[in-house]
Amino acid sequence: MSIFPLLSTQHDHTPAYTGRLGAPLGDTVRVRLRTTLPVTEVKFKLVRVGEIEAHPAREIDPVGPGPGRWFEAELPVHEGRVRYAWQLNFGHDHLHLTALGLHRTRRGFRSWFTYLAGHTAPEWAWESVFYQIFPDRFRNGDASNDVQTGEYVYSGRTVEHVPWTTPIDAWGDIHGHYGGDLNGITQALPYLQELGITGLWLTPIFVSPSNHRYDITDYRHIDPHLGGDAAWDELVQAASGVGIRLVLDGVFNHVGNEHALFQAALEDDAAPERELFTWRDEPGKLPYHAFFDVPTLPKIDYRTPAAVDEFFSGEASVVRHWLRRGAAGWRLDVAHMIGTGGTDEDNLPLHRTLKRAAREERADAYVFGERFYDPEHALDGQGEDGSMNYHGFGLPVMQWLARGNLTFEPSNLGGEELAEGLWDAYHALPAQVALSMFNVLESHDVPRALYRLGNDRTLFRAALTFLMGYAGVPCTYYGSEVGLSQSRDGAMPWCREPMPWDEAAWDRELRAQVRALIAVRRRELALQRGNLRFLHAEADAVAFMREYTHEDGRVQRAAVLVSRHPERHEVALTLPGGEWRDALTGETLSGGQVSVQAAGGRILLQEAPATPVG
Amino acid sequence: MSIFPLLSTQHDHTPAYTGRLGAPLGDTVRVRLRTTLPVTEVKFKLVRVGEIEAHPAREIDPVGPGPGRWFEAELPVHEGRVRYAWQLNFGHDHLHLTALGLHRTRRGFRSWFTYLAGHTAPEWAWESVFYQIFPDRFRNGDASNDVQTGEYVYSGRTVEHVPWTTPIDAWGDIHGHYGGDLNGITQALPYLQELGITGLWLTPIFVSPSNHRYDITDYRHIDPHLGGDAAWDELVQAASGVGIRLVLDGVFNHVGNEHALFQAALEDDAAPERELFTWRDEPGKLPYHAFFDVPTLPKIDYRTPAAVDEFFSGEASVVRHWLRRGAAGWRLDVAHMIGTGGTDEDNLPLHRTLKRAAREERADAYVFGERFYDPEHALDGQGEDGSMNYHGFGLPVMQWLARGNLTFEPSNLGGEELAEGLWDAYHALPAQVALSMFNVLESHDVPRALYRLGNDRTLFRAALTFLMGYAGVPCTYYGSEVGLSQSRDGAMPWCREPMPWDEAAWDRELRAQVRALIAVRRRELALQRGNLRFLHAEADAVAFMREYTHEDGRVQRAAVLVSRHPERHEVALTLPGGEWRDALTGETLSGGQVSVQAAGGRILLQEAPATPVG
Repeated sequence: MSIFPLLSTQHDHTPAYTGRLGAPLGDTVRVRLRTTLPVTEVKFKLVRVGEIEAHPAREIDPVGPGPGRWFEAELPVHEGRVRYAWQLNFGHDHLHLTALGLHRTRRGFRSWFTYLAGHTAPEWAWESVFYQIFPDRFRNGDASNDVQTGEYVYSGRTVEHVPWTTPIDAWGDIHGHYGGDLNGITQALPYLQELGITGLWLTPIFVSPSNHRYDITDYRHIDPHLGGDAAWDELVQAASGVGIRLVLDGVFNHVGNEHALFQAALEDDAAPERELFTWRDEPGKLPYHAFFDVPTLPKIDYRTPAAVDEFFSGEASVVRHWLRRGAAGWRLDVAHMIGTGGTDEDNLPLHRTLKRAAREERADAYVFGERFYDPEHALDGQGEDGSMNYHGFGLPVMQWLARGNLTFEPSNLGGEELAEGLWDAYHALPAQVALSMFNVLESHDVPRALYRLGNDRTLFRAALTFLMGYAGVPCTYYGSEVGLSQSRDGAMPWCREPMPWDEAAWDRELRAQVRALIAVRRRELALQRGNLRFLHAEADAVAFMREYTHEDGRVQRAAVLVSRHPERHEVALTLPGGEWRDALTGETLSGGQVSVQAAGGRILLQEAPATPVG
Repeated sequence: MSIFPLLSTQHDHTPAYTGRLGAPLGDTVRVRLRTTLPVTEVKFKLVRVGEIEAHPAREIDPVGPGPGRWFEAELPVHEGRVRYAWQLNFGHDHLHLTALGLHRTRRGFRSWFTYLAGHTAPEWAWESVFYQIFPDRFRNGDASNDVQTGEYVYSGRTVEHVPWTTPIDAWGDIHGHYGGDLNGITQALPYLQELGITGLWLTPIFVSPSNHRYDITDYRHIDPHLGGDAAWDELVQAASGVGIRLVLDGVFNHVGNEHALFQAALEDDAAPERELFTWRDEPGKLPYHAFFDVPTLPKIDYRTPAAVDEFFSGEASVVRHWLRRGAAGWRLDVAHMIGTGGTDEDNLPLHRTLKRAAREERADAYVFGERFYDPEHALDGQGEDGSMNYHGFGLPVMQWLARGNLTFEPSNLGGEELAEGLWDAYHALPAQVALSMFNVLESHDVPRALYRLGNDRTLFRAALTFLMGYAGVPCTYYGSEVGLSQSRDGAMPWCREPMPWDEAAWDRELRAQVRALIAVRRRELALQRGNLRFLHAEADAVAFMREYTHEDGRVQRAAVLVSRHPERHEVALTLPGGEWRDALTGETLSGGQVSVQAAGGRILLQEAPATPVG
């Protein structure tokens, strides 16, 4: 990981260390470093025109009463992404502090700190705890709008109405509709509020023939089977009343084949709509590009300005329309696939266009992409605010805890390599982006976490502790809080069982524990906005610290310890000195070398006047 | 470094493992993996439209007689840079093989193998050993063309002729001319040939007023003080006759202020030449953008198509002109600074334009940039072939050996961190680029290696062993082979002492050793074209292996061991089994756990029918 223990020397994005985030081009920002090492000189270094400039950092009076000397420099915001680092000299040796840690060589620019000029993060999301809802399966609030068996035929098959209590394996996949709707979500707001949820991500809710609704027919109306536009307005208003924001799922790579634009394009070779798609004439292939060559999902061609206007940036674009109508942001389906000419070319410029339009409409819109794989190249602060964090969080964490990957291939991944991989992904992101990553353990696309963990409640609590403790926006998946699992290996459709509303079926103890963890997350500034550093890693346990240093030097810390033992597991680690308090039990312990029971996960808190330790 | 020992499992760019390098878009390439691990299944994975595709790899008959099972798959060359990896399943566990090594998580795409579509590397350079000449200081072949004291005034100061034996500190910097010329280089070709040199990098030789000639007045003529165009033609012909290629120094970020285009622009606000530069009106600043605001070095503005034509891609561009006239390639001065509007914007597209023109003119032109800092972002195979490898080779290696950085700040950098940093920089480059990196320990811009090493011959041999053994094109610096050093700390001008031609001043023993190391490099395919893997690292020693596997499975290996002890140093390490032979002494030893005297560096060779070890 890091060759030197990081706690001796600190610089991060929090106020004591960085005067201001997102200052505009041309401004200057005060930056600071604190160290307990016996430095003779500290230099501030930045990259300009591809060269490294070094400037002396001046020693200042300590910020707060804790140990360590403080040094200050000015960061000129001379370009969109300013890369910077520090050099510490000792007479007989010297070190570099980058985002990766303390090292004797200066490392590649990927590991340097990154200042994003003029970047405004959706900071409300940092303070939020999200809950993902797959609307057909969450709650049926109005039986009168249910899809009826035989109501229509889609893709050659008649749709069915499925009773709420029927297990998923009794019917097919996308043609079975359980009847969940927005009315049901509105009814469940008190339930969600009690759980502590402050953000909802709804998978698609626009007019669509399938139960998942990723095959949209009309982007400007809510599916009547979900209650239509009126149900949306009602949900927005009610959710706002209980402090819950709504993020919609934007399917902008492809439309459903029943969409009017595609139908017009299909019917007439000369139609202007023709250019919204990419046509081809290749033996054995569809005549148009489609999502994984699925005929019902024709791919949109953003080479055509009308496509960019229609979905992203036109005055009445889909992106703008729903932000005006109360959405707080967009989750972008297969964000990495969006592009021109049937490809993913121009992906990043298109995301920049989308993001600009979203922010014009709503200054704090939260825009994040589904990027199932490594998203680092897309996270430069100009396009999406963050990505769904499968790569740098959910997949490796669950692989470690479940001792197998998401396709149930066994794995002996140990905590040491887990921490190394998480740190590698985390440190390369600008702080504002890292805190905006959308962290999930599970979703409608991957197996449920509880199921992967053998339905072990202790392991699931450990997973949730990781989620609530980690840097980035936590999102839970509907039903997990009451023990909803799945019937067999695999992801969809098995991970989409309907939410049980018969409370007799709930695991109330689990729900209380989830609720308590959510409350900790919502209360603790260090978890919402703190830096991240790993404290400890062994095969079956990892610990990391989140730290937030106020402008006056006051430090708030959370030490998060996660074990993959299903029963009692004592872990020895070293915590910074002073008193620590268990966030859930209130139990206190003194820092230093400690042995802590880690099974199920622990969050330990410390709030103190600046008390850094060497 | 790597969590698993790499030698158990292998895939690389050499023929047994990769059917062909640089296949065009649309082709398919046979790729293979060999492993001694007890796999139950091997999958081949590649990135397409941002998704990871997995395909089964089929087991094939072993390639060659060695141990290990072989698996084969087809790599579709579907885009310019195809990222791929392997997955090894074991029933109870699974691993990923990326360019970084064997890991239990799949890592970020930066660490995946990269296949470059349609990329032709200048493979002659892989087989070459370069020698850098600063022409004013190498050899005076024609006293009649010397700059005379008082001959002209440059930048307010009269130039001087400096006698060859005068030490540098007796005069100023850029105004003292020792009189070296191309005639001298032509005369020295037998000397260079005897040393084993096959490539020369000449710092600028075009008409210029200073002794370094980075302030060019006329790009289309050789400076008359270097012998003029006739001396160039003579040098090209003579060098070609002894198998030595010439790489020129292209100063394309700025011109000298005496250049006719800049003079025309200065004299007339309405001149069309005005647009070739970037003008400004800011208090206290030059009226034009210049290299580090040095008035004599106005920066070229490539926003102007005429600038691109003049220097890079026009029918008679400077790049084309000298390739036509016999140059084998270009080293691009401050490659990272080139750009539009007085900035480095559009840097990479401009390099692509330059490279295309160079390759049109000479299919195997070697184009590499001076990028003093981390060049990774520029090395996508479309622009320069490689970069000067200060970041990923020369700076860290010398920092470790010299126990201090290039500005003489002390450092306790240990071999473990050195190896980690080198591996990090190396593994992220496509193989063709990694082998095209221009490796230097020293140059006209940094202190001489021998001086930094306290003029210790053993340490200098260790440094040269590192250079000749490492992946990338090795370049030595004039005079080092006979012990030329410098008089004091600092870089320029102290690292530019004139070459001693009085053989009494030579360290002949050192020269013989350098010559022997060069001979090994030129003889050994594994050093020229092999893969790279670190075998061992401790504070004062590192060892790495280069391996080349022929299509028939025959393996050539070189184990390179470098110590920073100036005297005897026994290093214990594990070598693959079988017989090894010292490349210099011929001494043999058996593989396995060995203890090897490492001071001064060792290169051990093994050529065997495929004998991989677990």
